[in-house]
Amino acid sequence: MKAYKDMSKDELLTLKAALEEEYKTLEGKGLNLNMARGKPGFSQLALSMPMLDVINSGSDMRTVLGNDTRNYGDLDGIGECRKLMADMMSVQKDNVIVCGNSSLNIMYDTMARSMTHGVNGSTPWSKLENVRFLCPVPGYDRHFKMTEFFGIEMINIPLHDDGPDMDLVEKYVNNDPSVKGIWCVPKYSNPTGISYSDETVRRFASLKPSAEDFRIYWDNAYCIHHLYDEIQDEVLNILDECEKAGNPDMVYIFSSTSKISFPGSGISAIAASLENIESIKKQMSIQTIGHDKINQLRHSRFFGNIEGLQKHMKRHAELLRPKFEAVLDTLEKELAGLGIGSWIKPRGGYFISFNSLPGCAKEIVAKCKHLGVVLTDAGATFPYGKDPEDSNIRIAPTFPTPEEMAQAAEVFVLCVKLTSVEKLAD
Amino acid sequence: MKAYKDMSKDELLTLKAALEEEYKTLEGKGLNLNMARGKPGFSQLALSMPMLDVINSGSDMRTVLGNDTRNYGDLDGIGECRKLMADMMSVQKDNVIVCGNSSLNIMYDTMARSMTHGVNGSTPWSKLENVRFLCPVPGYDRHFKMTEFFGIEMINIPLHDDGPDMDLVEKYVNNDPSVKGIWCVPKYSNPTGISYSDETVRRFASLKPSAEDFRIYWDNAYCIHHLYDEIQDEVLNILDECEKAGNPDMVYIFSSTSKISFPGSGISAIAASLENIESIKKQMSIQTIGHDKINQLRHSRFFGNIEGLQKHMKRHAELLRPKFEAVLDTLEKELAGLGIGSWIKPRGGYFISFNSLPGCAKEIVAKCKHLGVVLTDAGATFPYGKDPEDSNIRIAPTFPTPEEMAQAAEVFVLCVKLTSVEKLAD
Repeated sequence: MKAYKDMSKDELLTLKAALEEEYKTLEGKGLNLNMARGKPGFSQLALSMPMLDVINSGSDMRTVLGNDTRNYGDLDGIGECRKLMADMMSVQKDNVIVCGNSSLNIMYDTMARSMTHGVNGSTPWSKLENVRFLCPVPGYDRHFKMTEFFGIEMINIPLHDDGPDMDLVEKYVNNDPSVKGIWCVPKYSNPTGISYSDETVRRFASLKPSAEDFRIYWDNAYCIHHLYDEIQDEVLNILDECEKAGNPDMVYIFSSTSKISFPGSGISAIAASLENIESIKKQMSIQTIGHDKINQLRHSRFFGNIEGLQKHMKRHAELLRPKFEAVLDTLEKELAGLGIGSWIKPRGGYFISFNSLPGCAKEIVAKCKHLGVVLTDAGATFPYGKDPEDSNIRIAPTFPTPEEMAQAAEVFVLCVKLTSVEKLAD
Repeated sequence: MKAYKDMSKDELLTLKAALEEEYKTLEGKGLNLNMARGKPGFSQLALSMPMLDVINSGSDMRTVLGNDTRNYGDLDGIGECRKLMADMMSVQKDNVIVCGNSSLNIMYDTMARSMTHGVNGSTPWSKLENVRFLCPVPGYDRHFKMTEFFGIEMINIPLHDDGPDMDLVEKYVNNDPSVKGIWCVPKYSNPTGISYSDETVRRFASLKPSAEDFRIYWDNAYCIHHLYDEIQDEVLNILDECEKAGNPDMVYIFSSTSKISFPGSGISAIAASLENIESIKKQMSIQTIGHDKINQLRHSRFFGNIEGLQKHMKRHAELLRPKFEAVLDTLEKELAGLGIGSWIKPRGGYFISFNSLPGCAKEIVAKCKHLGVVLTDAGATFPYGKDPEDSNIRIAPTFPTPEEMAQAAEVFVLCVKLTSVEKLAD
């Protein structure tokens, strides 16, 4: 393989003509494939269908402690579900509140509460001149949209293979009192798939925030979402590390079963120090009488315990591996050595992150769309939708079938090649 | 029956001694009855158990439109559930967003959104010096606690038999730009059980708010919660009336199936003008990817349509009537003519509201508690928990069995008598 940058103008133009020919052929195919969102595929949804038989009209609806899940009560979730989610999140049951169907909604509520009421008694953020959040990039678009929605200024922090640039994080957090938080997806990060190293976690725990109301928003969305049995990332327990470092209240951990049971009909949870939990419960008692405890019971009984969850995740992995590999194999086969893109092979999570030549991402996504392959909008993985390099593209390989995924990947690499050659020949 | 106020001091003291004797007897009984919260009873919960069979592992999980309820999508709820809730709330499907398990949570989100982002583009309430809400009293304690939580000043408005004192409502709303909202439970009001007259609704719709961001919070919690077949309250459609009066955006309507299917595992909804709905959806798209659509499907399929809902509510009514009547019969038999209390016989809803002699409510509730009968805290039906007359007591007769309810009612009337005689003999 000859790298594109080593090609002569003539070679580039010849290549361009050939790629354009191929592009035209694909135009006629009328493809309709979606790699935009991290949606589980049909076969994954089927895995959880037996869960719907677990609770029926003949079921004992009481919790282990004897509480009737059909009536009001148990604001922080039923005991067995708190235990299940605690084990999943590697924390103690007392540190967990089980909520509704969406961890995104818990994050929103957490941010909204900080806006209107401050953090455990601090000045409400809505009363402050400047509130800023650190945003490791590329990151999750919904985190950034939420932060923007609340008028919080976002600061890009480069995300490396072992986590965010901690020198920069420390510089901001330890010196700027307007920096109130940072978004983290510590394991199988969205979208790059990397996991934070032990050193990164320890440096997080040892921050000396200038703002007393600084919080780490630790979105552990993919905590048990491994793709392989033999190689699984482990991330150090942030709650323990914060406690050890004398910062017990500095972190909120979020997670859910959206990509374990059913997106939209799963269970979400927040974990934090006992003091944070008390403070959250106070607000929550104003907001709701309680969450859906029948669904909590359904989840607890179906999975049983953490081993049940892990077994279930292995079945997800079996379905997901071929889809990820269809993309990764195509990227490797078609793009390796060409110098027009880079990517990380994730060991878990829901995404593959691709970096094109600078200035090419938007055009690649547009070309793919023209050929019937929808990707997440270029730029979406950055605050304000602005990728300064116009380089990052998030690929979500979970929803299509492996065959469709292979087809979509072919389209993708063609569009990468054509856009790159256009750029270089320009 | 001789009214207490017509008794001589001697008569009162003799009566007091006899009542004290009775009180002592009950002290030894070790009762443990709860009439504090509007919780459905066991027999009511049993009515909805067959709902848990409607969706199982063999079910077609697609909506009428073919959307997979198991995956992300349908932010505003699945079509058939929006239709069902719209019919229940007497509005059009397009005016409805079906949400999660709690209408209280929708009200909270609505208020929180107004605090952080204003109402359809108005200045965020958190940026304003004064924000005030009108609170018809007695009313629902959770409304008041929420309003207090957001630091919104509450103004008591007397609630009459046909609705709030509209002269006062008009005076405030039409002249004070800091008045941003009013809490209403228009049908089978919590706690008095009254329903708003057509004239009240029309006067609401015809308000000329001084504040552009004034909203009526119309908590139609008991819209189909009749106790009787033959006499059912009807409340004029506020959304239609507001539209007719040129105030289409002035009202938010809230409701849920918490007291139809399962408290905590039901379906909630908000209804409003299309412009309001658009504005709410914009915020909601930041907050969540969607609500629990499997539970929406479960509800839609179980109830089928509004007739199914109504049929189900008749079965609830059959279970609730004896409980309400146990209380009402005891009140009538034991207190009529004594001039020490008044109450309204509700035709629906979840509560019986009792007004004691001024200055007696707290003591009555305390005495009941001492005898093992828990009532809602006196004062809870007023903003800041302060009943200026110390007179109103909310009785929630739904959770105990009819037999327990009769027993609790006996305790209650004894405590009313004893407290009143203590007061009068003092």
